[in-house]
Amino acid sequence: MVPHLVPRQLVWLCRRQVACARGASVQHRTWAGVSGAPSLLSPWRATVTSPLVCRSSSSTPPSAPKVVLTQERYPVTRLPFSVVSEDDLAAFARIVPGRVITDPEVLEASNVDWLRTVRGCSKVLLRPRTSQEVAHILRYCHERNLAVNPQGGNTGMVGGSVPVFDEIILSTALMNEVISFHSVSGTLVCQAGCVLEELSRYVEERGFVMPLDLGAKGSCHIGGNVATNAGGLRFLRYGSLHGTVLGLEVVLADGTVLNCLSSLRKDNTGYDLKQLFIGSEGTLGVITAVSIQCPPKPRAVNVAFLGCPGFAEVLQTFTTCKGLLGEILSAYEFMDAECMWLVTRHLRLASPVQESPFYVLIETSGSRAGHDAEKLSDFLDQVLSSGLVTDGTVATDQMKLKALWALRERISEALSRDGYVYKYDLSLPTERLYDLVPDLRARLGSRAKHVVGYGHLGDGNLHLNVTSEAFSPSLLDALEPYVYEWTARQRGSVSAEHGLGFKKRGVLGYSKPPEALRLMQQLKALLDPKGILNPYKTLPAQA
Amino acid sequence: MVPHLVPRQLVWLCRRQVACARGASVQHRTWAGVSGAPSLLSPWRATVTSPLVCRSSSSTPPSAPKVVLTQERYPVTRLPFSVVSEDDLAAFARIVPGRVITDPEVLEASNVDWLRTVRGCSKVLLRPRTSQEVAHILRYCHERNLAVNPQGGNTGMVGGSVPVFDEIILSTALMNEVISFHSVSGTLVCQAGCVLEELSRYVEERGFVMPLDLGAKGSCHIGGNVATNAGGLRFLRYGSLHGTVLGLEVVLADGTVLNCLSSLRKDNTGYDLKQLFIGSEGTLGVITAVSIQCPPKPRAVNVAFLGCPGFAEVLQTFTTCKGLLGEILSAYEFMDAECMWLVTRHLRLASPVQESPFYVLIETSGSRAGHDAEKLSDFLDQVLSSGLVTDGTVATDQMKLKALWALRERISEALSRDGYVYKYDLSLPTERLYDLVPDLRARLGSRAKHVVGYGHLGDGNLHLNVTSEAFSPSLLDALEPYVYEWTARQRGSVSAEHGLGFKKRGVLGYSKPPEALRLMQQLKALLDPKGILNPYKTLPAQA
Repeated sequence: MVPHLVPRQLVWLCRRQVACARGASVQHRTWAGVSGAPSLLSPWRATVTSPLVCRSSSSTPPSAPKVVLTQERYPVTRLPFSVVSEDDLAAFARIVPGRVITDPEVLEASNVDWLRTVRGCSKVLLRPRTSQEVAHILRYCHERNLAVNPQGGNTGMVGGSVPVFDEIILSTALMNEVISFHSVSGTLVCQAGCVLEELSRYVEERGFVMPLDLGAKGSCHIGGNVATNAGGLRFLRYGSLHGTVLGLEVVLADGTVLNCLSSLRKDNTGYDLKQLFIGSEGTLGVITAVSIQCPPKPRAVNVAFLGCPGFAEVLQTFTTCKGLLGEILSAYEFMDAECMWLVTRHLRLASPVQESPFYVLIETSGSRAGHDAEKLSDFLDQVLSSGLVTDGTVATDQMKLKALWALRERISEALSRDGYVYKYDLSLPTERLYDLVPDLRARLGSRAKHVVGYGHLGDGNLHLNVTSEAFSPSLLDALEPYVYEWTARQRGSVSAEHGLGFKKRGVLGYSKPPEALRLMQQLKALLDPKGILNPYKTLPAQA
Repeated sequence: MVPHLVPRQLVWLCRRQVACARGASVQHRTWAGVSGAPSLLSPWRATVTSPLVCRSSSSTPPSAPKVVLTQERYPVTRLPFSVVSEDDLAAFARIVPGRVITDPEVLEASNVDWLRTVRGCSKVLLRPRTSQEVAHILRYCHERNLAVNPQGGNTGMVGGSVPVFDEIILSTALMNEVISFHSVSGTLVCQAGCVLEELSRYVEERGFVMPLDLGAKGSCHIGGNVATNAGGLRFLRYGSLHGTVLGLEVVLADGTVLNCLSSLRKDNTGYDLKQLFIGSEGTLGVITAVSIQCPPKPRAVNVAFLGCPGFAEVLQTFTTCKGLLGEILSAYEFMDAECMWLVTRHLRLASPVQESPFYVLIETSGSRAGHDAEKLSDFLDQVLSSGLVTDGTVATDQMKLKALWALRERISEALSRDGYVYKYDLSLPTERLYDLVPDLRARLGSRAKHVVGYGHLGDGNLHLNVTSEAFSPSLLDALEPYVYEWTARQRGSVSAEHGLGFKKRGVLGYSKPPEALRLMQQLKALLDPKGILNPYKTLPAQA
């Protein structure tokens, strides 16, 4: 019933009466394209100025309340590391001349996470340019028993990227050179401090794409992405960094440079050491360079933004989508109505479709526009006529694609403007992915401002977020361990992609058995016997 | 110029005169389909009885010469492990009643690798059925300081799967149960001893495929695949096991059961321990169960088998293919003329195309037959008219697909019938992938029976094989370290996918720096302090 798309031109618009749709019960539906003549029922325009997110606590308005020190809010005790002395500063000045920052104003942005929930009190930030400088710094710190907090773009969600006490901040910001790019294989080798969005631009100009993409792309560093095993928006298509990262250069706690910066797709010579560091949140070593496999840039990209009447329909749309879009499906994201309310309210983005209980963003990426359009058209035809989807819009134009993506990518930013955010990032069986959201709404009642659910449905990953005017210990008590226990009962993960950092390190046991925890602690002791690397993070405090 | 394919019917046949091809210089070419009316110039029929390989040294004809003991052929000294006593046998009989094998006839097949190049002298083989039994066995062996050789299908290429001396063989053959399969997500959880081909059949009946496939599928166990980080024929499409394996259950050297058998696509709670065991060849722990992500079964599969006039054309065909087939490309394999000679001679397979210096096998897997056929047709049109390809055949029918695949998959088997095989499995820059083959032919002259090159071109992986009538130390001296030094100069890997096992453990240093080797040794000491797990394998002998 939906008009078939003209191949290679997936910019289309139609208005349809439900009378012609099989089994439909709604009286009117719109199906509005994001370009071409405006739809009467969906007057949305791509008025977003820039959908790119630049997360940095330094851009916080001066009126924002000061963030409470982590050591005051949480029960945590400083470990017996040395305190940075004048002699240490002089030594650092010899290693990274002119790049030893002690100005409290400048340090402020690096002591506070972008969510403004945790705050360290580091007195010094170092900005090395090379792996050798990182090695010198760590060798020195190891000898002096000085704790170090490696920091990339400081866009982490779990307090892993800022100091808890006075750890030295080791920033990768000046390590931002592309080392090599192979234009046939698509292998990119670069320093750890390259910003993801800049790398994306770099490889896209050469006919490839980065295998990962995430809302924080404008600020996050590739080294931090690897250190946290970032998932993000392309995981469904290109998989985990454990598969796409080909090699790493890592500086170990004692300053040893471990060069596993291979550019080979396959290498089975001994244990795959790089895997240890992917997702270890800077607690086992400092990643200084990354070799990563970039897939070819798809010639045709389409984004459909759809409204669904319920979560059951979101799930059925996903099943239909997998069958009909097959290998061209590159993202299947969902968000609930409260998410849409937050992005339209706090960020002034406009919804492109009629108000719905749920929204789905589907991306296709393929090599032949005509074929992709035909597959997408058949899919849309089916989900509309069966009532799984009640309204939607499709975009192929780059600006409009970005605008549609912004609705999903900027939810996190909108939440942070809503108040204090309690963030949960859960892996759950897809069929139960949303159950916890209404459950929590009932449980928390008016104590919460908003309880929202969104995320990477295709990967079984729910971002569950609760907001309140300010941090409330009693609200936290109502949330935890309730959320973790609920998740553990479903045999889910209490951190699907954010990692554990500082804020979640105590909940590892909900997803991993004691034998695993013990082995993790042994690995930490082997690789960082003095525990100087990103202390108070990832692993629970030892009794 | 090539006739466009009828969508959904990619079984076709045509005969063409080169006069109509742009820039072609050959006088006659054939383009023969594998079904339909036979081509006059390509009288090939799919007469192969079964393209499936069942590798087992027990099927060796009785006339085959006895394999020399490893300890006699190689300079290796037994480490001071205990020797299995009658008391030990009694203890094992209590742990795995009726499944303690000491009959020398039965042990023979497990003491010798399928290539018949190495031979241990184990006196006992244990066949546990459960992880708990494996845990009991290892706890006992750890206490008694008894060395253990974990064994799956015994299809390894580097002597990793058989004992070197009298290690106890711990077979996973009876651990062959599927534990669970999720029919929506495609997540398979199974015991380690499941045979890959049987798993393939199981998941294919449910609309999915295994993310890996290899020539040894009829015998190899999934646990062994994971332990060796097997690459194989689907790597190009579905990537490494480091990305597709979701969870593992592993029994550690001291009998601790490490349950990381998650079925979640994303889980960032602490270090990703399972990664340590993928590719560690049974030296860090015994994999007892695997959770793996199976992709949806493609609705349409095509295989094209093409002849190319030179290696430069093989490379250009690959570039063309990536551009035009895009996301439906699932394999790009190549073999040289000598490989074809070996499979036609030793296995009596028939070549489907005219004699060519090189052959390429291309597989597409997609969700829509018509679209895929159109893409493939455009690709074939382009490579034929430009002279990159001189002859070829295309199949869609399951039996004929398998027959074409057999030409590539059974090369290894054909080689083993040609004499003693010196096997090299190298990762190299694609543009230099074949250079070493003619180089070695010139270097070795008549000392070698055959020097052949084939492999996974799409992954930069060359299988370089040399045969001689019998093992010859002087031929080995001419090959090694020459091949390794040549590879190291290209910054390649001396083992792309086979691992190091016993035969390659001394060459790790050609692809990894000393710091990496040191860390590997530390990990081994941490996880297996007595060194009882698969000793003499993977890591070089310590000074």
